[in-house]
Amino acid sequence: MTNIKLTIEYDGSNYCGWQVQPNGLSVQQVIEEAIFNLTGVKTRINGAGRTDSGVHADGQTATFNTESGIPPESFSKALNHQLPTDISIVHSCKVDKDFHARYSSIGKHYKYVILNREIRSPLMENRAYKVGKKLDIEEMKRAAINFQGTYDFKGFMASGSQVADTTRTVIEIFVVSIEDTIEISVKGTGFLYNMVRIVAGTLLECGLGKLQSNDIPGIILSGKREAAGPTLPAHGLYLVEVIY
Amino acid sequence: MTNIKLTIEYDGSNYCGWQVQPNGLSVQQVIEEAIFNLTGVKTRINGAGRTDSGVHADGQTATFNTESGIPPESFSKALNHQLPTDISIVHSCKVDKDFHARYSSIGKHYKYVILNREIRSPLMENRAYKVGKKLDIEEMKRAAINFQGTYDFKGFMASGSQVADTTRTVIEIFVVSIEDTIEISVKGTGFLYNMVRIVAGTLLECGLGKLQSNDIPGIILSGKREAAGPTLPAHGLYLVEVIY
Repeated sequence: MTNIKLTIEYDGSNYCGWQVQPNGLSVQQVIEEAIFNLTGVKTRINGAGRTDSGVHADGQTATFNTESGIPPESFSKALNHQLPTDISIVHSCKVDKDFHARYSSIGKHYKYVILNREIRSPLMENRAYKVGKKLDIEEMKRAAINFQGTYDFKGFMASGSQVADTTRTVIEIFVVSIEDTIEISVKGTGFLYNMVRIVAGTLLECGLGKLQSNDIPGIILSGKREAAGPTLPAHGLYLVEVIY
Repeated sequence: MTNIKLTIEYDGSNYCGWQVQPNGLSVQQVIEEAIFNLTGVKTRINGAGRTDSGVHADGQTATFNTESGIPPESFSKALNHQLPTDISIVHSCKVDKDFHARYSSIGKHYKYVILNREIRSPLMENRAYKVGKKLDIEEMKRAAINFQGTYDFKGFMASGSQVADTTRTVIEIFVVSIEDTIEISVKGTGFLYNMVRIVAGTLLECGLGKLQSNDIPGIILSGKREAAGPTLPAHGLYLVEVIY
């Protein structure tokens, strides 16, 4: 039995998310079917991050066990022949038998992309969240720094989530802008459900002048979902890398 | 009668190119139909560049005459309501009655995007030409400089083209790389048919070590199509801007 790790890029636009669901096609299901077509064995894969419908990935990861004689490095190209053009296995390799895509990871890197212009962009369609009003990017940069560190991020979690410990560590967060695109880059040891999209929504409020950068520590401390900004739409979010 | 200039962004993947054709849907046709839906008058628009099937545009331009009372600046949003998500009018304004999108232009800016990695990328699907072999980017940069200037670019034209004067001026050309993406940016007073894609193919040969950067002046001088590199595929090409 060989434990294989896949690194996966996808455009999430046409999927109900990563995880297999009774209704709707998931990225996981499509990859599992490709593995079945290749090896003839029904195989469950374990993904590192359960990305929502519309969320994209540059570097999602997943692990699975196989008795197939296919060389571990060859799974990438062999599976890509089976997969649609919006999913690609960018790398495959053998890992230790106790390595698990999700539980072995020590962190994740996400980015949230905002297109700051009034008119919609065909080349960024489904790839960025469009905001028409000119944003104060410097204020967003100042606000972002406040998220760095270990805090109880209870207020930055989708309401209704059941998690005992809501303390998380944001290792690094910054805002960069290139022409009319603004990227919020966030690395953390782990994230609560919708946390990156709520952090992005809170930074957006700072960019819009509805919140001040120095409001952020108090918002985090309050632990109240309604103190933070809105959950921005899924299609601006990318799982850039799973850190091991 | 008001002369309106449109600036247009599109993802060319689903079109037979800019220009109206008997078989296949063109970007021009879709915009003309949107104008008809809006104004009730069949209207011909004149585009600046006849982009081929699969070629994208950040800033194509087109002009048309209308007796509609719609404010010139409002055509952008009004037309976008009629247009599919892969075409967007990013700007509209009134121009002098003798202004013509094509004949008034003094130059064009194109870019050609190469994805330099072995495995296909869902997020760059139909948006860049994938080259698996690692390219020598520095050699491509050195090669590019040789195209700058006024030359007879006869060898950099699709064979069979009927053009009396094949002399063109490349105002600026450079190669930039960001992670595994290589962009060839070219500004010129005008281009021969397929010229940018053949220049990109010739720079690619330099990156692959099949040609040397100092071969370029001789290739241009020879005027022979077969001396230059291949015509790279349409889906890596973008009409960035029409210069006035």
